Amino acid sequence: MSASPSTLRGVLSPVLTPFEADLSPSSPRFLRHCRALIAQDVGLAVFGTNSEGNSLSVAEKRRLLDVLVEAGLPPSRMMPGTGACALPDAIELTRHAVEAGCAGVLMLPPFYYKGVSDEGLFRSFAAVIDAVADPRLRVYLYHIPPVAQVGISLPLIERLLGRYPGVVAGIKDSSGEWSNTKAVIEAFGAQGFEVFAGSETFLLSTLRAGGAGCISATANVNGAAIAAAAARWREPGADERQAALDRVRAAFQKRPMIAAMKAAIATGTGDEDWCRVRPPLVELAVEARRGLDADLDAIGYVRPTLPAPD
Amino acid sequence: MSASPSTLRGVLSPVLTPFEADLSPSSPRFLRHCRALIAQDVGLAVFGTNSEGNSLSVAEKRRLLDVLVEAGLPPSRMMPGTGACALPDAIELTRHAVEAGCAGVLMLPPFYYKGVSDEGLFRSFAAVIDAVADPRLRVYLYHIPPVAQVGISLPLIERLLGRYPGVVAGIKDSSGEWSNTKAVIEAFGAQGFEVFAGSETFLLSTLRAGGAGCISATANVNGAAIAAAAARWREPGADERQAALDRVRAAFQKRPMIAAMKAAIATGTGDEDWCRVRPPLVELAVEARRGLDADLDAIGYVRPTLPAPD
Repeated sequence: MSASPSTLRGVLSPVLTPFEADLSPSSPRFLRHCRALIAQDVGLAVFGTNSEGNSLSVAEKRRLLDVLVEAGLPPSRMMPGTGACALPDAIELTRHAVEAGCAGVLMLPPFYYKGVSDEGLFRSFAAVIDAVADPRLRVYLYHIPPVAQVGISLPLIERLLGRYPGVVAGIKDSSGEWSNTKAVIEAFGAQGFEVFAGSETFLLSTLRAGGAGCISATANVNGAAIAAAAARWREPGADERQAALDRVRAAFQKRPMIAAMKAAIATGTGDEDWCRVRPPLVELAVEARRGLDADLDAIGYVRPTLPAPD
Repeated sequence: MSASPSTLRGVLSPVLTPFEADLSPSSPRFLRHCRALIAQDVGLAVFGTNSEGNSLSVAEKRRLLDVLVEAGLPPSRMMPGTGACALPDAIELTRHAVEAGCAGVLMLPPFYYKGVSDEGLFRSFAAVIDAVADPRLRVYLYHIPPVAQVGISLPLIERLLGRYPGVVAGIKDSSGEWSNTKAVIEAFGAQGFEVFAGSETFLLSTLRAGGAGCISATANVNGAAIAAAAARWREPGADERQAALDRVRAAFQKRPMIAAMKAAIATGTGDEDWCRVRPPLVELAVEARRGLDADLDAIGYVRPTLPAPD
């Protein structure tokens, strides 16, 4: 493979999914938030872990993606999560994303069974790619062992690249281990395989090592700064910019991240409906929210101020 | 709650799901296998872990359940797995099972997010029960931390029983820890809460302690013996019968269980199509199958001889 760089390089966000009072996804809030992210040059990795993507049904995900595309947001900046425990679900979502023109899909391995073999995981990815059978498909592998428990090894990547060159396009490494991210870049980066760090913590390290960028939850609430740090990584002050990103992330990471980011958006927009999460998650408790606010104020964090609901 | 004993007590099997060459579920084989289990007095806990239940889409599970009910198999002996990561999926499957007349459903907690709170899990189960809103619903909680990683604590059971007496009807404990099964029986058994051991390993212990029976993978391949051991647990020879069950289970448990059980059925029926599994699982390797056959022969195991395909 000698692929040209994709339109996805840089910074993407696993877009938070807002919910209505009946816990159905709130399309208007979702669309507004996605528009704001795009305006900050943050790509849309919708239906990721921090999107509560696995708490959404296949039909709900299809519908939300349609909302974005029909509103004219650029599919060239979309990498929806399409992995699933059940093959038919992964196939349906992946096909839908490709037909919508998405530049890539972010694919979790099936994650219910633990201790499965690389052979079984190879067959899982292969089954989806073979079934979708579309030359436009670009698969980004999603390695997040702390949550999925099922990870993606280097030998598995090598085997997939050998069988599906050009289709298997990159990886999001949310292992939290820089040594792994580095090893993947060193092994496969030169052939155009795009390696995204799983958070901005390793953004500068990833770009310096030849990686493609990061896909980070906190890009939901600190997108402009993360995107600027990525765009200007060769310029003076890069380490200071990275340190500033780290301070913001630390404040969110001290709490349940998804609920904390939603609370920050609720505060910034004045729209308390943003606080809702789907079970099994729970919204931030009052005390925790107060602590988050204090921490954010202490570092001079400016909250996102998306327009309130129409 | 002072519920009368359910029609599910005794032995149930997480029914293996056979697949066609294109990896779609094989309804004819599934129906034949279910008929054979019912004939052995083994109940149908379809769509469990050993059914590859989480590798099936919601639509596939609905269809397979319909096949059984339309063929006249007794819903009074059915406890389909209906838990899912996404609430809408769990609600749809649970509602479908209740409308089909199933005596109960076996409900996994949402299992993607790890380290979630009991509050979040309570809300998950409550959301399904409230949405289905059918007085016929009987929920059996599915505690299988070695696989799901997300477990069901005693305080959570207590809270659910307090809020949904009569609806929250029991549990399958696949923790593999007898101390936990015993604690659940002691805490809630007297009020009619039906505790099923997650395998026949603890069948006798569970029945002696006042539990309801077991839901065991190996009932797919040793159903008659397990059902007999359950029915005659107060009669002389119970410990010997339990020991015989343990020997058979050990032979299967030494290998990847699902693939091993499917291989045994393939050998017994002469229908090699039974060997198929869905990714990420893989079928038993030739060497492992030979080892299984040798182990089974050594203990005088008689293979299931379901009729071959029509």
